Amino acid sequence: MTSLTPSPSFSLTVRLEIPNRAGQLAAILQAIGAAGGNLGQINLVDQTRQMAVREITIDAISPEHEERLIETIRALPQVRLLSVDDRTFKLHQGGKIHLQSKIALKNRADLAMAYTPGVGRVCTEIAQNPDQVYRLTIKQNCVAIVTDGSAVLGLGNLGPQAALPVMEGKAMLFKEFAGIDAFPICLDTQDTDAIVNTVKYLAPVFGGINLEDISAPRCFEIEQRLQKELAIPVFHDDQHGTAVVTLAALLNALRWVGKSLERVRVVINGAGAAGLAVAGLLQRAGAQGLVLCDSQGIVSTSRPHLHPTKAAFAVTQSGTLADALVEADVFLGLSVPGAVTPEMVLTMAVDPVVFAMANPVPEIQPELVEDKVAVMATGRSDYPNQINNVLAFPGIFRGALDSRVRHLTPELYLAAARAIASLVAPQELQREYIVPSVFDSRVVQAVAQAVAQAARESGLTQG
Amino acid sequence: MTSLTPSPSFSLTVRLEIPNRAGQLAAILQAIGAAGGNLGQINLVDQTRQMAVREITIDAISPEHEERLIETIRALPQVRLLSVDDRTFKLHQGGKIHLQSKIALKNRADLAMAYTPGVGRVCTEIAQNPDQVYRLTIKQNCVAIVTDGSAVLGLGNLGPQAALPVMEGKAMLFKEFAGIDAFPICLDTQDTDAIVNTVKYLAPVFGGINLEDISAPRCFEIEQRLQKELAIPVFHDDQHGTAVVTLAALLNALRWVGKSLERVRVVINGAGAAGLAVAGLLQRAGAQGLVLCDSQGIVSTSRPHLHPTKAAFAVTQSGTLADALVEADVFLGLSVPGAVTPEMVLTMAVDPVVFAMANPVPEIQPELVEDKVAVMATGRSDYPNQINNVLAFPGIFRGALDSRVRHLTPELYLAAARAIASLVAPQELQREYIVPSVFDSRVVQAVAQAVAQAARESGLTQG
Repeated sequence: MTSLTPSPSFSLTVRLEIPNRAGQLAAILQAIGAAGGNLGQINLVDQTRQMAVREITIDAISPEHEERLIETIRALPQVRLLSVDDRTFKLHQGGKIHLQSKIALKNRADLAMAYTPGVGRVCTEIAQNPDQVYRLTIKQNCVAIVTDGSAVLGLGNLGPQAALPVMEGKAMLFKEFAGIDAFPICLDTQDTDAIVNTVKYLAPVFGGINLEDISAPRCFEIEQRLQKELAIPVFHDDQHGTAVVTLAALLNALRWVGKSLERVRVVINGAGAAGLAVAGLLQRAGAQGLVLCDSQGIVSTSRPHLHPTKAAFAVTQSGTLADALVEADVFLGLSVPGAVTPEMVLTMAVDPVVFAMANPVPEIQPELVEDKVAVMATGRSDYPNQINNVLAFPGIFRGALDSRVRHLTPELYLAAARAIASLVAPQELQREYIVPSVFDSRVVQAVAQAVAQAARESGLTQG
Repeated sequence: MTSLTPSPSFSLTVRLEIPNRAGQLAAILQAIGAAGGNLGQINLVDQTRQMAVREITIDAISPEHEERLIETIRALPQVRLLSVDDRTFKLHQGGKIHLQSKIALKNRADLAMAYTPGVGRVCTEIAQNPDQVYRLTIKQNCVAIVTDGSAVLGLGNLGPQAALPVMEGKAMLFKEFAGIDAFPICLDTQDTDAIVNTVKYLAPVFGGINLEDISAPRCFEIEQRLQKELAIPVFHDDQHGTAVVTLAALLNALRWVGKSLERVRVVINGAGAAGLAVAGLLQRAGAQGLVLCDSQGIVSTSRPHLHPTKAAFAVTQSGTLADALVEADVFLGLSVPGAVTPEMVLTMAVDPVVFAMANPVPEIQPELVEDKVAVMATGRSDYPNQINNVLAFPGIFRGALDSRVRHLTPELYLAAARAIASLVAPQELQREYIVPSVFDSRVVQAVAQAVAQAARESGLTQG
């Protein structure tokens, strides 16, 4: 797992004891820079006449690069390396989320109201008026983040325990961006029936279900069955979150290059959960020139034994991804690192739009084709135009919870995508600014309102 | 659901506009007192020359009593009732717990470390070294509070949604008393196999499982199967929490009356989860004179078709609860309100010990036999000697999580009970002080240490 530019995800904090003499710090920083380290915060921890203790944050390119940087520092004369922390691992120690009471329990009266005997009256009220569960419990604001660990990020089938750090991170995003209390549910089964049943059994506590990192094609059946059996929103973020944000970004990228969605040739590489959902939503939005590719090349009508979910997008053309990209207007990568070469990009139509969204390492490093594309986007937070699901799912759930939306539909996803795209005003649109920042506080509200309104128009709300 | 004394669980906050004249407030307070309301906080909200707005907290005896108090206030001349809040319901609005991030997500570097791409390295680390899940995720401090809503408090089979306020309250107790992050899991199934499988599938996120309010006899099989199949502690609080605290209180009550556990005649009324667990743990602790009663009277060897869990405690005597209580030293009530009459208590041996632990309303109201017993205890927070599981489960889980205890055993429960009892020093022991207060901060640590030490001695720890 490496990138070509230093990233905070490979970040060290080193504590150094340095002779307190002019030029010493500069020499150290120069050595780190020469070794490719990207300097961040530099703190003075302690200082005497003889020595200074400084804490320096350094971004690296990879774990191996981290090791080389440490060796570089150790080799410096008169410098003592007091400690090294990998910042990402340090941040994960003990987990990233915790639970809090909204009310202090400081005396017997608090206990008698929040717990027994007072709580019994609240239970009885809900038993008699089931809808009161939305008023008197956490259900109104609570989402389950459900995974089986079968498709963790781009890393594959790591299992439920190894998926937990992602789900905790997702819970942080739910809270930070939408004020939603989301809890990780990492299931020790990859059986479709077992997952569906388990989520059904869990549902009473939750106002919504966010499916995450479940591999295709099981994820399709799991989502469809749960949508049918539960009266709360069920959302597979890898499909619909990705599709919503990709469509939003594509609408603006096409505005920038002056092409229309109806006429462009769009090559989607990756026919997993995300690729198929993107294809589906683009079609709903009016795209007609879609070419879907998977690891065997173009999904062509000439290929035998196509899974029905892929067959729906099959075209008469056949060949490799490289063949598909010739004269294509748009490349949407939802596949694997390095799937696209600079040579392939050169064969695309004028003003090519390239979304290299494989995570954590894109289909093509942006640096390699910076001058050759009209618009470049990735899934990463350390490049411009980040196609990040955090633009979609917090607002979609915020709107769905607030309006008691029973089911999410493609109409709601289209409304969400258009709401995100509309936040980049015409005069703001740039090749490096086709989607709002994930830290743009208008996003969650705009998406929530669009979803709630579309749901009301479709009669999908209750309560 | 009523009690004989006003309780914070039936508590009103009324806002009144009162003419600003001498004697007006006193007249109102007198009227409330005459109607049986117990006055709490009285706040002055606003005051002009003509009038005062005051907010008055009043504890009542029952919901009906609350209504009568409101009518009393409405009938007062020149007093305007501006608003009425039932404090218990107000406190429950929106639920009682929420989730929080431990780390702020304020910029791209935070995102890159806590979420993608940085989190991928943490996932890979756990996939390669599964034990690291205890270091790098919430698992180390996380407990699932699992119910099926089949035996909610003393209220019966209210179902999973109506059970949620209890489970949220339990989560508050876990946090407040032991710093543990516990999350409510309310299952929409009452099938034993389905519950066992669901909890197994959920286990990866959790360092322990607390079963709660699951009816007997299913709760026994569920706990036993989960104990066998999972390598994390599984604890049915209604059984073992109750048993631990009951034993702790009984040890001290017997010290107070100068009797020995080996020799006393103990009548346990209620042969559900709690009653059977109490009987089992008392036997382990050395009690020999146990008489178990259920709704049909004494569990006697002469009764046909006894469930094996009850048959283990059957005695040759037969008859009613009243028969059992004649010359009994101890009554332990884990049954229903009003099961015991003052007349029955009068037939007990000298210095009778009565634990009336039915919740929310005890087997006998303490006021009725105050002068006739040596020691009285209840499950309620508004009487002395509260037999409250919160004395046990926070410390048991704290010790189990900190020492990575794989399984909980009766030896650990005995150690926990003795640790609780030992916190009441001989010179402190009183008829109204046989257990430490639930707000005694020494309890959780004493129990955790006792459990961890007993677990180490039994070879039940890991990690």
